[in-house]
Amino acid sequence: MDIVIIGTGNTATVLGKKLKGAGHRILQVFGRDAAAASELAYQLETESTNYWSVVTREADLYVLAVSDIAIEELKSELQLGEKTVVHTAAAVSKSVLEHSAAHFGVFYPLQTLKKNASHLPDIPMVIDASDPATLDLLDGLAHTISANVVEGDDAYRLKLHLAAVFCNNFTNHLYALMEDYCRTQGIPFSLLVPLIQETAMRLEEMAPSDAQTGPAIRRDQATIEKHLALLKDDARLREVYVMMTKSIQGG
Amino acid sequence: MDIVIIGTGNTATVLGKKLKGAGHRILQVFGRDAAAASELAYQLETESTNYWSVVTREADLYVLAVSDIAIEELKSELQLGEKTVVHTAAAVSKSVLEHSAAHFGVFYPLQTLKKNASHLPDIPMVIDASDPATLDLLDGLAHTISANVVEGDDAYRLKLHLAAVFCNNFTNHLYALMEDYCRTQGIPFSLLVPLIQETAMRLEEMAPSDAQTGPAIRRDQATIEKHLALLKDDARLREVYVMMTKSIQGG
Repeated sequence: MDIVIIGTGNTATVLGKKLKGAGHRILQVFGRDAAAASELAYQLETESTNYWSVVTREADLYVLAVSDIAIEELKSELQLGEKTVVHTAAAVSKSVLEHSAAHFGVFYPLQTLKKNASHLPDIPMVIDASDPATLDLLDGLAHTISANVVEGDDAYRLKLHLAAVFCNNFTNHLYALMEDYCRTQGIPFSLLVPLIQETAMRLEEMAPSDAQTGPAIRRDQATIEKHLALLKDDARLREVYVMMTKSIQGG
Repeated sequence: MDIVIIGTGNTATVLGKKLKGAGHRILQVFGRDAAAASELAYQLETESTNYWSVVTREADLYVLAVSDIAIEELKSELQLGEKTVVHTAAAVSKSVLEHSAAHFGVFYPLQTLKKNASHLPDIPMVIDASDPATLDLLDGLAHTISANVVEGDDAYRLKLHLAAVFCNNFTNHLYALMEDYCRTQGIPFSLLVPLIQETAMRLEEMAPSDAQTGPAIRRDQATIEKHLALLKDDARLREVYVMMTKSIQGG
């Protein structure tokens, strides 16, 4: 397919690379920041623009890969007639694009994307569309970059986004808390990285409900008390510890 | 080295396999459960026993890889004279073994170990010993199975164990909560596994404090409110969500 990428951030960059890698042609990169647009266009071996008036009308698909707020700001600038436009956001309704083009939808990558990462991760894709033909088109496109494609409406996507917050934002915060704790205690945080990675990799073999270990699940109060004593001067860590322990023990 | 493994659980099994794989000879497996001892001995191509009286006195090292409670129960049965014995527990003092043998220490694998896992993970090793010669011996042994070996006393090990609880037990619980949530919402939990794994793998390139994303860190109250509305009938998930969001926003 011939595609225009609108946006220059993490999602625009990684989706752009994935799509180009799958053999699609990126016709243009649009970005309000001309330097960022030019940089991404260079990586995708295409041209860039920061003027709406010169965005080509020849693409099969326009991918609006910008922040939730920018979708709101850009949607009225997009007047794509009979073309097809998608946004890439979990928590934004499909219908915000209904006045931007005859065909519209959502092309949501369920992954944490960083433009400077050294590899392109597997990306489950969640798609939605204004009409069956557009859904077919997005389904075919998604399958060119992912083995894991599901259809999901606004409500489904919001639930997935909630789950992603628990699985990515909250777990990463636990890592960050321990990075800080280790620094204050003179312990190299790198010692914990194999444990963290094994915990995540184990999901391929075992349900997390079957993999739970540790003092909370075995109600080892002696060890829990030793841990709480270590945290007696750190109200923030202590609160997380107590609440998670309670939740593990059944809420 | 010639080694006796005492215990038949996850730690005994995985350490036994690692040690055998590194070229050490497992002389015996001791287990109170004769069938379990026999099974592990078969895997390690050695003999098993469930009688203390027939435990060989010819080993260089006795590895007591049993639960914290079982260490307390077994320590007086262990009368190993001039030999060297180690336990493998994070939260148990080195000194519990001081009457069991002339040389004693700790050989703590900082990893989540499952006997039936399909691969042997990387295992950072934390060691401690009664005397410098024993510490040297354990350091040399640890390096035969791990590239990541540190010395750590009782206090250091307890802090590492606390950090492991946050990084493994608490994160796995977040996965388990979402496994359950996805089931009730008709969403395949497998969609989230690539995200979870990428979050863990990213630690090789980026500090977690630099990788934090999501509605909490960007104080996107509109999205947070949408998520809380989804959780209005689930007090347990709501409590975790509110507390983690608050902690991400600075405690």
